Amino acid sequence: MSTAAELDSNIRDVPDFPKPGILFKDITPILGDPKLFKTSIQLLAETAGDTQIDKVVGIDARGFIFAAGVAHLIGAGFVPVRKKGKLPWTTHQMAYSLEYGEDIVEIHSDAVKPGEKILLVDDLLATGGTAAAATKLLKALDADIVGISFLIELEALNGRKNLEHPHVHSILKY
Amino acid sequence: MSTAAELDSNIRDVPDFPKPGILFKDITPILGDPKLFKTSIQLLAETAGDTQIDKVVGIDARGFIFAAGVAHLIGAGFVPVRKKGKLPWTTHQMAYSLEYGEDIVEIHSDAVKPGEKILLVDDLLATGGTAAAATKLLKALDADIVGISFLIELEALNGRKNLEHPHVHSILKY
Repeated sequence: MSTAAELDSNIRDVPDFPKPGILFKDITPILGDPKLFKTSIQLLAETAGDTQIDKVVGIDARGFIFAAGVAHLIGAGFVPVRKKGKLPWTTHQMAYSLEYGEDIVEIHSDAVKPGEKILLVDDLLATGGTAAAATKLLKALDADIVGISFLIELEALNGRKNLEHPHVHSILKY
Repeated sequence: MSTAAELDSNIRDVPDFPKPGILFKDITPILGDPKLFKTSIQLLAETAGDTQIDKVVGIDARGFIFAAGVAHLIGAGFVPVRKKGKLPWTTHQMAYSLEYGEDIVEIHSDAVKPGEKILLVDDLLATGGTAAAATKLLKALDADIVGISFLIELEALNGRKNLEHPHVHSILKY
């Protein structure tokens, strides 16, 4: 298996995306390489430790890629958290702040049963707004959130403190 | 392993979504069940037959879930096709028609090398507009498209004819 260092060396820094001054961490070179993709899934799955996870929750849209891989690897179900209006059935909603204004994420109200063990997975921990909203949705459904795991954490943005959870993991820190 | 019939019986029909008169096929009950999720990935992977696939291409956003699972299962890379403006690096673009107006999908210009064997995966074949645009993008990159595979096909909408490919597969037909 390849290592976290190999993942790091295959991330592509794209300047000024999505806007001037932002150095974007492009993960598509990792996704496109079978070994690196498998490693990223494996390392994210290992963040759950020995706990048997019932469902892996992924956040729209890049989070779906990693969360689906982890769910498949560990034999768990997959649950999507999506932007407002994308889920067809009855939902719980949670607003979160953006730089300007706010946005809303949703989860199906029957997506998680009380007490189910959940691993929340996303590609990137920046300010943590979306992941914090997803965490609140899961708590509203009485889920047991075992951990919140990211491929990449941008430490300077301090998103970890917004999550208010003892088990926040990231594979690559910048 | 569970079967296609069990997948069928776990799809939730949601009337009038996303608009009045549409009966939406909600796949989230399949995703949330570990066995059914694994079966859906397995059946989609089998559509490639004996051909060794280099990369599984998924379409934003529900397509990511299945395509990532298939890529993980068969040990291939994963490539995202996304709505305009979401991919950070140099892209190829393709427009496709909507009921009113048009939309654009993109792929990274280096996502696929000439001759690489590709399985294109999405959740739903309706009119086929997005998948046809994704197919054109892959052909522009000189990819070898082995097959185009969907969990669900809405046969009355005739999307299959828009794809102009000899190997279009669907697990569930309605």
